[in-house]
Amino acid sequence: MELAAYLQEKREIIDQYLTEKLPSEKEAPALIHRSMRYSVLNGGKRLRPILTLMTAELLGKPYELVLPAAAGIELIHCFSLVHDDLPCMDNDDYRRGKLTNHKVFGEAVALLTGDALLVLGLEYIRQNAEVEGVSKESAVKAIQKTLEMLGTRKMLGGQIDDINWQLQKQSEAKIIDIYLKKTSALICAALEIGGLLAQANVGELSALHSFGEKIGLAFQITDDVLDFEKDKKSPDKPSYPATFGIKKSLAEIKRYCREAKESLSLFENKAKYFLELVDYVQYRKE
Amino acid sequence: MELAAYLQEKREIIDQYLTEKLPSEKEAPALIHRSMRYSVLNGGKRLRPILTLMTAELLGKPYELVLPAAAGIELIHCFSLVHDDLPCMDNDDYRRGKLTNHKVFGEAVALLTGDALLVLGLEYIRQNAEVEGVSKESAVKAIQKTLEMLGTRKMLGGQIDDINWQLQKQSEAKIIDIYLKKTSALICAALEIGGLLAQANVGELSALHSFGEKIGLAFQITDDVLDFEKDKKSPDKPSYPATFGIKKSLAEIKRYCREAKESLSLFENKAKYFLELVDYVQYRKE
Repeated sequence: MELAAYLQEKREIIDQYLTEKLPSEKEAPALIHRSMRYSVLNGGKRLRPILTLMTAELLGKPYELVLPAAAGIELIHCFSLVHDDLPCMDNDDYRRGKLTNHKVFGEAVALLTGDALLVLGLEYIRQNAEVEGVSKESAVKAIQKTLEMLGTRKMLGGQIDDINWQLQKQSEAKIIDIYLKKTSALICAALEIGGLLAQANVGELSALHSFGEKIGLAFQITDDVLDFEKDKKSPDKPSYPATFGIKKSLAEIKRYCREAKESLSLFENKAKYFLELVDYVQYRKE
Repeated sequence: MELAAYLQEKREIIDQYLTEKLPSEKEAPALIHRSMRYSVLNGGKRLRPILTLMTAELLGKPYELVLPAAAGIELIHCFSLVHDDLPCMDNDDYRRGKLTNHKVFGEAVALLTGDALLVLGLEYIRQNAEVEGVSKESAVKAIQKTLEMLGTRKMLGGQIDDINWQLQKQSEAKIIDIYLKKTSALICAALEIGGLLAQANVGELSALHSFGEKIGLAFQITDDVLDFEKDKKSPDKPSYPATFGIKKSLAEIKRYCREAKESLSLFENKAKYFLELVDYVQYRKE
């Protein structure tokens, strides 16, 4: 199967799971359930949960083994987007061509919707303990890993650093550190919880972590290059390309993509889709 | 020991644990760690984590068995307060006589601080799995119970209903339902995770749940009566006393307190401090 078809298949599995599993708009309190579905079922790429499913298959396990946790990671990603879009943060009116949550439901509901997506995302990861073939212990480790990757030493710390970055210039090392925290951390969580639930060994988990860091950096710098070129965001908004220029950014994306591929060398040709996905990130145009 | 001294002793244990365990203001990113400590180490009553410690002792176990989870419940309570105080929610400038988080750190930091307190609170509950004498399984159940009590069917659902309540009148049954969700649910979580970690049986867990519902109702209506009398909150803000008057409110508080005590009959005189705590809630003046 070609990568595009493979990704499409996995994306439909995630979308179907979320569509069926998220609380219905008919269930009280209807308002927050409608709001949650609005911000989750919105045509997202589902990159993070697809990585969780891909990791199970990389380790020779069926994707069904990790499906609840994969869906949980997507909800946690959506939580971070809903809060990021709020007026006190990025103050974005649109996301993926649709009005952002607070533009439709108001700030109070958007705030609580983000909170609820975080709680429900963690609950889906916990529910993965009930899947046949998953040990209670690996499910606890998956929750632990997710909480670690979300905390102030990782994702939320990266978001705080991002706010400071608006106020003062940062060194290249600091910018890379911010990207590792705000973007790579949740991608690492997606990969590593897939690995933990599918009983990866220590070497495999370490390879997945390294891959997540590198692909996260490549992904974020690419995102910023695309934004910078389209001038979608304020030109004052600091980013890697705004600081170091497009040429150096493209060279760094290329390097991180190469290093991402190298991280997975121990999986040999079983990592085929991962390696192709790296090229997809490197050459994407939107 | 008298109840007041017992509560003071337990409160100091919680405060000491949080003071030592919360990330230092010196650790990067310093801003969010300073902000978290500001909103946690603020002289709170620590009612919820004290209930967790009391539950372990009620079941004949040392309070140390449940201390990390108790601290986690307090962080989760603080998360809900920081988000509740935000301009888009209650827009409060002061809490416990100090400026609210967003008045000191700004809205963006307050938003992320709430998120971080929720994540770290859940992590502390997970860490309770590492306490000697606690089974991995009961720790997973404690996380599950907490997530259940936080979700849109419980605490976050109660907060959404509370927003709607500003817009339209509610029946008495609906008001009680809102209080059960927005206030009793986290108190139930505090009691029940204490019970789960200290290996309570099904009957004991059910008694703790019922006690939590009733004491939560009595606590919230008392809070609203005190606010109503002092006219601290806007007179337009809906509440049980604003809807049904002080006389009926006091009668209901009395009834819920009696029912709270009755819930614990199976513990006989071991529940001494719980019963005295009910009187403390019933007759408190601030």
